[in-house]
Amino acid sequence: MGDYNQLVVLDHIRRARESVSRVELAAVTGLSVQTISNVVGRLLELGLVEEGARQIAGRGKPRTLLHLRPGAGYALGAHIDPVSVTTVLLDLAGTVVDRSVVPTPDGSDAVVEAIAAEVARMRTLVPDGEVVGLGVAAPGPIDPEAGRVIHPPLMPSWGDVPLRDRMADATGLPTLLEKDVAAAMVAELWQRSTDRGGTTLFVYLGFGIGFAFAREGEVLSGSSRNAGEIGHLIVDADGPECFCGHRGCLGVSVALDRLVGEAVDGGVVPADTPRTTPTELDAAMARLAAAAEDGVGGAVAILERAGRRLARGIVIVTDLIDADSVVVGGANWERLAPYLTSAARLEFAGHATMRELHGVGVDGSAVGLWVGAVGAASRVLDAAFTPHASLLVAHPTGS
Amino acid sequence: MGDYNQLVVLDHIRRARESVSRVELAAVTGLSVQTISNVVGRLLELGLVEEGARQIAGRGKPRTLLHLRPGAGYALGAHIDPVSVTTVLLDLAGTVVDRSVVPTPDGSDAVVEAIAAEVARMRTLVPDGEVVGLGVAAPGPIDPEAGRVIHPPLMPSWGDVPLRDRMADATGLPTLLEKDVAAAMVAELWQRSTDRGGTTLFVYLGFGIGFAFAREGEVLSGSSRNAGEIGHLIVDADGPECFCGHRGCLGVSVALDRLVGEAVDGGVVPADTPRTTPTELDAAMARLAAAAEDGVGGAVAILERAGRRLARGIVIVTDLIDADSVVVGGANWERLAPYLTSAARLEFAGHATMRELHGVGVDGSAVGLWVGAVGAASRVLDAAFTPHASLLVAHPTGS
Repeated sequence: MGDYNQLVVLDHIRRARESVSRVELAAVTGLSVQTISNVVGRLLELGLVEEGARQIAGRGKPRTLLHLRPGAGYALGAHIDPVSVTTVLLDLAGTVVDRSVVPTPDGSDAVVEAIAAEVARMRTLVPDGEVVGLGVAAPGPIDPEAGRVIHPPLMPSWGDVPLRDRMADATGLPTLLEKDVAAAMVAELWQRSTDRGGTTLFVYLGFGIGFAFAREGEVLSGSSRNAGEIGHLIVDADGPECFCGHRGCLGVSVALDRLVGEAVDGGVVPADTPRTTPTELDAAMARLAAAAEDGVGGAVAILERAGRRLARGIVIVTDLIDADSVVVGGANWERLAPYLTSAARLEFAGHATMRELHGVGVDGSAVGLWVGAVGAASRVLDAAFTPHASLLVAHPTGS
Repeated sequence: MGDYNQLVVLDHIRRARESVSRVELAAVTGLSVQTISNVVGRLLELGLVEEGARQIAGRGKPRTLLHLRPGAGYALGAHIDPVSVTTVLLDLAGTVVDRSVVPTPDGSDAVVEAIAAEVARMRTLVPDGEVVGLGVAAPGPIDPEAGRVIHPPLMPSWGDVPLRDRMADATGLPTLLEKDVAAAMVAELWQRSTDRGGTTLFVYLGFGIGFAFAREGEVLSGSSRNAGEIGHLIVDADGPECFCGHRGCLGVSVALDRLVGEAVDGGVVPADTPRTTPTELDAAMARLAAAAEDGVGGAVAILERAGRRLARGIVIVTDLIDADSVVVGGANWERLAPYLTSAARLEFAGHATMRELHGVGVDGSAVGLWVGAVGAASRVLDAAFTPHASLLVAHPTGS
């Protein structure tokens, strides 16, 4: 990808999101206007950047604005969840060009095959050779150096899977592996890049629950890129028993099988509601949320309690890391949003240590259901087009 | 402090801890050897840096090694704890030149006076005008912009105190305010600067308990520099009631008044043991720890339970931030160390999500009881001699 200055300039154009002028690039990079002009010349030749409108600022010479040529490069992203596998094709500007969702097949072999099929289809949509790589977001824990998923509690049949190399072999693309919630937060931050200050807590409510953190727009992913394990945070001393031996752990308190079980016990959903597989549980959870929305008292009570427990966990962690904003996403966010939002407001007002110092906003995801896959693809673009490119990308065997 | 390159070079010499050559400085800063030579020339003239031994490497010209002139600058640091106020004088190389500990007087006026008296005494030890500033480490929450301590739960009589400006007025020194546990972690990281990789959790066991985090040697202090509030993390669903309305919060589970109360109830310390003030509680805690060391069963049981609860909290947060090392310090660390260390080993082996991926070392503080004050003084040196100097330093009124 050429020299360091070239990557610095390209990265600034990419992150600016709006068009920028050569003079602005010189100001933010600290490089001379002459160096910027040379580098931009090369980027124009390579077709990575395009000139757009001319900006007239005061009496000076009009400035030609630069932006990325979106079609100059693409990345693929896949997000593996127990319920569904989402795949997206992202262009260099971060726009989703294509997307698909399929139910998660059984076992890691079938998942690899399903993603490879989607990848092959999406690659036909863009010129040959313009896909930079594939990012895979998977439930943790992951071993980032070996590219393995290691006994993910959410995928009990998986064991220890060399997912990165298997995806690279199946697709022929350079592949990186990221923990699901970290990938999702990357996408959120990209979407909110105009507002990157402060410390943010990201709460992912998918089939499972995970947290992620960022400071000034950068995800803090921990020593082995596994930050965000939160399942055993105790949020209610009177909560349900957890397999870990404690009571009231966050994971078990808001787990779909528990909430659906409470709904069955309370007669809110029929006793014969199928609830064995993740897909069945997801469908049953949708019925519970619909009943609550219809005002069924028992359903509201179940989700209110889940919202309170989750709010308690959010406030504990917000205080711990001194976050000034909380973003919540994932398939279960919309279902829990009304109950979680009001519970969080009460919990912050009543119990947060920082309540005298600063408020904490709680927002829904700006990316929506594709957030994990978009984040995984964004990481590929970061790795390809950012200075200090990560070494995470594994090339397929034999290439 | 002169220009940016000068600060960059000085900072590298300071952080290198060992002597460095001009060639090494060029390599780490990315500046040319000619620029380095010019900057070093100025630093030698200013007396901030000294030339030392000559290093013979291979057949090349011997290299003259550079190091800071320790007496070229000093910083003062004070750490306010409910039991004692610690003050240190630090030279530019980070060596403690003088130190003192006094029992914490009642009320913030008396504390400001006590620190000002120590500061005045220590300033007589070094040439006039060579003290760069004063750093104050105080229990949180703090308002860093206003320099205020806001209703610190550990100092109930304090209310809302403009501590930074009052210390600046009382001493005539530029003053900065830092949260106690963040300051302590700065000192730990400085002491361990040869090993700055990874993600570290710092656990401060003083009169109260606080956590802090660092990534690659930098403290992650959150959106308002208040990260580390951990008192209401639930660590035992069967634990004691907390004033917050929950049960088994970490703060109340390992609070000195609770542990001493258990010791009185269990007949481990006499029923008439004074235990009203922080100082009395600290003395009673020392008796409890001594009894446990003597093998008194009731005392051992109390500290083992506290160790288990604390270990539980440490493992929850280690998993959450994916830390690869834990450092514990503060006046109560030595008293709890044997019980906490074995409990933490068991908890990590049995419950940590990362246990299959990487071990987590648990170490005692490398700085010891002065850690908070040393950290506050280090922050002053950072602010004075580091590029991107913080704006935290408040100058005394009228200067």
